[in-house]
Amino acid sequence: MGGVALFFFLATIVITSHAEEIPQQIHLLRLYTGAAGNKIPGLNCLSWRLAVETDNIRDWRVVPEKCEDYVGHYMLGKQYRKDCDTVAYAAIEYAESVKPADDGKDIWVFDIDETTLSNLPYYARPQVAFGAKAYNSTAFNEWVADAKAPPIPGSLMLYNRLVSLGFKIVFLTGTGEPVRQARITNLKKAGYYTWEKLILKQISERGTTSVVYKSKKRAELEAAGYRIIGNVGDQWSDLLGTNVGNRTFKVPDPILADNLIGINGSRTCQCE
Amino acid sequence: MGGVALFFFLATIVITSHAEEIPQQIHLLRLYTGAAGNKIPGLNCLSWRLAVETDNIRDWRVVPEKCEDYVGHYMLGKQYRKDCDTVAYAAIEYAESVKPADDGKDIWVFDIDETTLSNLPYYARPQVAFGAKAYNSTAFNEWVADAKAPPIPGSLMLYNRLVSLGFKIVFLTGTGEPVRQARITNLKKAGYYTWEKLILKQISERGTTSVVYKSKKRAELEAAGYRIIGNVGDQWSDLLGTNVGNRTFKVPDPILADNLIGINGSRTCQCE
Repeated sequence: MGGVALFFFLATIVITSHAEEIPQQIHLLRLYTGAAGNKIPGLNCLSWRLAVETDNIRDWRVVPEKCEDYVGHYMLGKQYRKDCDTVAYAAIEYAESVKPADDGKDIWVFDIDETTLSNLPYYARPQVAFGAKAYNSTAFNEWVADAKAPPIPGSLMLYNRLVSLGFKIVFLTGTGEPVRQARITNLKKAGYYTWEKLILKQISERGTTSVVYKSKKRAELEAAGYRIIGNVGDQWSDLLGTNVGNRTFKVPDPILADNLIGINGSRTCQCE
Repeated sequence: MGGVALFFFLATIVITSHAEEIPQQIHLLRLYTGAAGNKIPGLNCLSWRLAVETDNIRDWRVVPEKCEDYVGHYMLGKQYRKDCDTVAYAAIEYAESVKPADDGKDIWVFDIDETTLSNLPYYARPQVAFGAKAYNSTAFNEWVADAKAPPIPGSLMLYNRLVSLGFKIVFLTGTGEPVRQARITNLKKAGYYTWEKLILKQISERGTTSVVYKSKKRAELEAAGYRIIGNVGDQWSDLLGTNVGNRTFKVPDPILADNLIGINGSRTCQCE
């Protein structure tokens, strides 16, 4: 975990001091011009984040301009990690109330990006600046291939507790099958050392929405005799649809979805 | 709205200065003994509220002791109202994208308590102190019978816009049928002057959970030819289950549900 903490610290430094790259300063006060993609009168960034987290604001593509600094500070600060930990504690409390059967069919489904692994080191790059700069699919795909995403500490804590309780883990991601090896490398490097299944999106499944794709995969799991005891994701599309499991857990995420790497739609292929 | 603003102001005064009643001071610093009902290590109240709003923490019966002051200040302060307004603006943006048909069958379903009407004047009483004091069913029933609950401003704004757009309104509440007249009086007094249906819980339906009861009522609406365009509630039990509608909107509520008036279970009969 020390490495992760160090990253968050260093990321802050990079954002504010990497002069050579002409970094996007998240402290910079910008004029509020109307919140790109979300025309909310008198937009309040705390309210915006709550509305996103509670699925009231949907299909947003970029963080409102007024809220870029707020979201950047939130994600790099303590509150995001505390919010993630609280979800993990709630999930652990629930998991401890369920005794898994001996047949190895009681599973927890985890999304990967921003649920299990954090892409914050990528978003925090001056060239990305939390999405304030244009999306670069080459750079993002290189980042995924590098397999260096750190774990979200709360989720790793939950994962370890679940494994010790005897649950099986299924990773279900919209990441494409071609990067399977990179994902395996990354998961293991981040501390996720064992799993029952790692389900990636096949080329034939490109174009299906996340809700449809993930519902289908969960239905297949149940058809194979698995019981979905818990389901963890950062997007409501991970947690809605069919076969969602006995309990769902929403990990905070006010920057992702269709906003950053989804701008040109390619995220539906390469990532979740 | 002026009256409502005045109430929120006066409520704060009452809470902190009504010496004769030995009021529960929401500023009072209390020892953190472990969060009643929610044993979350290192509990952070912002994280707790987010986890409740995102349905990660469920079946909580009381606000954690450490968070009583925080929740009280949130509800009486500006942020709660801004959060409610943001939900309303998101719902209005969606509603304006849908053109209701001429047959009068395009409806919006609204829960009542803490969605349409606010019971904050009751919760803010020194004898209630945001649930820090023992639940008194007689007092709460008298409060409902008084029909003096103010509207939640954002929801009234949404309601007015929906009516002007040509949608029909259905109020669906767990409040019991015996208090129908008081609810009608209260709704009208608060500014909700017209509706298609006001559905209250029948005596025969007591004991059914909110999810089951509300799903059944929504299924009956759809069977009668209505199309649920939007569905607004402060509890996830308003928004999950079956026949939830084309879009759901979660109004903030970190104090209600099973925590205050649900302590002895009687809220399932008399209220939502």
